[in-house]
Amino acid sequence: MPAAHWEGTGVDEGHDELRVDGGRLRRSLEAMAEIGATPGGGMHRLALSDDDRRARDLLVAWLEELGTRVEVDEMGNIFGRRPGRDDGLPPVMTGSHLDTQPRGGRFDGVLGVMGALEVLRTLHERDVVTERPIVLVDWTNEEGSRFAPAMMASGVWAGALDRDWAWARTDADGFRFGDELARIGYRGPVPCARRPFHAYYELHIEQGPRLEREGRAIGVPRGIVCLHWYDVYIEGTANQVGTTPMEGRNDALVTAAEMVLEVRDLPARMGGGMVATVGELYTHPNSRNVVPGAAHFTVDIRSWDDELALGAWDLLQAEFRAIAARHGCGVRIEETWRVRHNEFAPELVARVRHAAGRLGYSTLDMESGAGHDASYMATVGPAAMVFVPSIGGRSHVEVEETSWEDCEAGANVLLQCVLASAHERDAGAGAG
Amino acid sequence: MPAAHWEGTGVDEGHDELRVDGGRLRRSLEAMAEIGATPGGGMHRLALSDDDRRARDLLVAWLEELGTRVEVDEMGNIFGRRPGRDDGLPPVMTGSHLDTQPRGGRFDGVLGVMGALEVLRTLHERDVVTERPIVLVDWTNEEGSRFAPAMMASGVWAGALDRDWAWARTDADGFRFGDELARIGYRGPVPCARRPFHAYYELHIEQGPRLEREGRAIGVPRGIVCLHWYDVYIEGTANQVGTTPMEGRNDALVTAAEMVLEVRDLPARMGGGMVATVGELYTHPNSRNVVPGAAHFTVDIRSWDDELALGAWDLLQAEFRAIAARHGCGVRIEETWRVRHNEFAPELVARVRHAAGRLGYSTLDMESGAGHDASYMATVGPAAMVFVPSIGGRSHVEVEETSWEDCEAGANVLLQCVLASAHERDAGAGAG
Repeated sequence: MPAAHWEGTGVDEGHDELRVDGGRLRRSLEAMAEIGATPGGGMHRLALSDDDRRARDLLVAWLEELGTRVEVDEMGNIFGRRPGRDDGLPPVMTGSHLDTQPRGGRFDGVLGVMGALEVLRTLHERDVVTERPIVLVDWTNEEGSRFAPAMMASGVWAGALDRDWAWARTDADGFRFGDELARIGYRGPVPCARRPFHAYYELHIEQGPRLEREGRAIGVPRGIVCLHWYDVYIEGTANQVGTTPMEGRNDALVTAAEMVLEVRDLPARMGGGMVATVGELYTHPNSRNVVPGAAHFTVDIRSWDDELALGAWDLLQAEFRAIAARHGCGVRIEETWRVRHNEFAPELVARVRHAAGRLGYSTLDMESGAGHDASYMATVGPAAMVFVPSIGGRSHVEVEETSWEDCEAGANVLLQCVLASAHERDAGAGAG
Repeated sequence: MPAAHWEGTGVDEGHDELRVDGGRLRRSLEAMAEIGATPGGGMHRLALSDDDRRARDLLVAWLEELGTRVEVDEMGNIFGRRPGRDDGLPPVMTGSHLDTQPRGGRFDGVLGVMGALEVLRTLHERDVVTERPIVLVDWTNEEGSRFAPAMMASGVWAGALDRDWAWARTDADGFRFGDELARIGYRGPVPCARRPFHAYYELHIEQGPRLEREGRAIGVPRGIVCLHWYDVYIEGTANQVGTTPMEGRNDALVTAAEMVLEVRDLPARMGGGMVATVGELYTHPNSRNVVPGAAHFTVDIRSWDDELALGAWDLLQAEFRAIAARHGCGVRIEETWRVRHNEFAPELVARVRHAAGRLGYSTLDMESGAGHDASYMATVGPAAMVFVPSIGGRSHVEVEETSWEDCEAGANVLLQCVLASAHERDAGAGAG
């Protein structure tokens, strides 16, 4: 492949023969997957659980074997720093998270940390010296399943969330985030605050079916779609089912069911690749012989186009109020969370695309439908992601799966991108 | 009112001036409502709880004050027997239940027991001697909220359910019915098996809005509608919401929502006063950023016409399978429980109607949409019920309410019916 192919992408041809060790990467992933494994073949390693501690301990031990300097910040984020020739230059950062969904999978998050570790190991065994330092990062509580919201610690690091507020978050049993962090020994001394970085790369499974459906090896996301979360509460009238005629019922579940179908129909009405989902629904009193007197459900709307998503929500709210009125039910709507769409640094995105091409992998330009720690990183510096295929498009479930070959391919793309950025002396488009 | 009006109804004009003491009835109801009272003004007195024991103890103390002979059977049913002139004749029985729904109301069941007690007290203070004995009964676990199914102990008494099977039923915490019965001291020595009775009357709140809507004081049910319970399980594909396109989703909740609306539409399609309800619905994993991978809901269908209900179910099942197929979801359907409609003894029903009229109360002929202990009693002897209005048609909820005047009216109708049956020497239409 001619050198011209690399023009402008900053890939250092001096190391373009470097490859990760796919077998070693697989063994790391398998070892990590033993900590919090479920009988169903998945993972249940909630943030700040004992299993999270064990996973962190293993990562720290592996990092120390490589001679990297390990630091833990106040939010439990773990940084493993490999020095550069000019160690005062802002580093290249790469990583993801080790916590999982409840009964989730073995790859979500973990691949990005193990991929970064494999990059460091490859550089270590080949004695590669880079201009800039390289920092592996394991972000605390990306999933947000135990402590809401998701991506909490990268959010604090990026300055979008407040540390004390985060420490005070509680799980379903009333345990405080800050206390649990101290309990597992990972409330570190380093302030959780952003520092200049030259580039941030995150390797991750796609979590969707597109790469597999289109037969591509590497997904190149241009950014992350917007994310709008709503909570809808319906107040009807609970009553004995047998003695309450159909006419005049205020059935909160029937009302909710009509709303669920409106949400389902929304993307087709709006276009623009929007998705809209009701993931949670609760019925009260939830007894088979009582007409449901109350219901609560969530709405998740995502789109690359923030305005389209807001317009969709206006439409949906009006429909909800009309449906509730038709059933004589009250409706209360909470706007729970909104994150605008987030664009990655175009030059890093191009580097991911070109590195994959140079390595002989087919690519697909896309958007990320899921939030990642890279979302917050992209708000404070140049960031990009590397996606690899999810078999059957499944994730957040125990059967989540990615082939070892695809894991290796993603780690090789990550290696080339990290190397290219780490060899750059100039700030370029980077923040430092 | 001319005597001819009473012809053939067996009402004994010798006692037709007798009236219950409305104030005393109210005080009994209020005292009972203190045992297991909720902050919301309702009752939480689950079967075989400590509060159930306290309510039973109070009832037994009151019965013993009247000199009635109290017996407790193996299912915890409490019988208070007031002798007749010919004590060998099959008795007239009357009662209901003292257990309540979780956070239920103060009248459901309790009114029928307190009304029966008020009848005994009235006869006692007036030294009325009846031909036949009169037996007050408090049936165990009518609600079935803690130990399924409902009407369990009257079912065993009537021979429809097996005692050992009932004893082995467990609650959500794994406690066995038989053990809990012994724990509260109400696993009595008397075999739980039906004995001949001349008539069974049960006073109860309507639990629906019809009496109030039509401005009538006394409901006269001709029987109890059929009751069909089904459980529907949907198997879809759980997935990350942001990364899974709308096309090709197998969303179990969307599938369930379409089915819920089919259930809602069923009565209008079928006619015949049918009601159909989805009371419970569960979504899995029930996480706002995961496409629901499974759902489970219940269906309750009731109608006077058993065949119509069965036909409706056939229709519904076909719709369910078509909906599931359209969404690429699996569906499994369980036929959980079926009870045929149940007709009360026409001569007792006529007696209720005529006694109410004689007392100057307006009446409404109707059907009972709810099951009652009278359902099982009607399968083994002559039974009837007396309904009084539920304010707002509400029941199984804390705000369940009936006016004291209506409680008194119902108890007066019960008194006249019990007296009339208890004065009858001949077996008549009765079982003994």
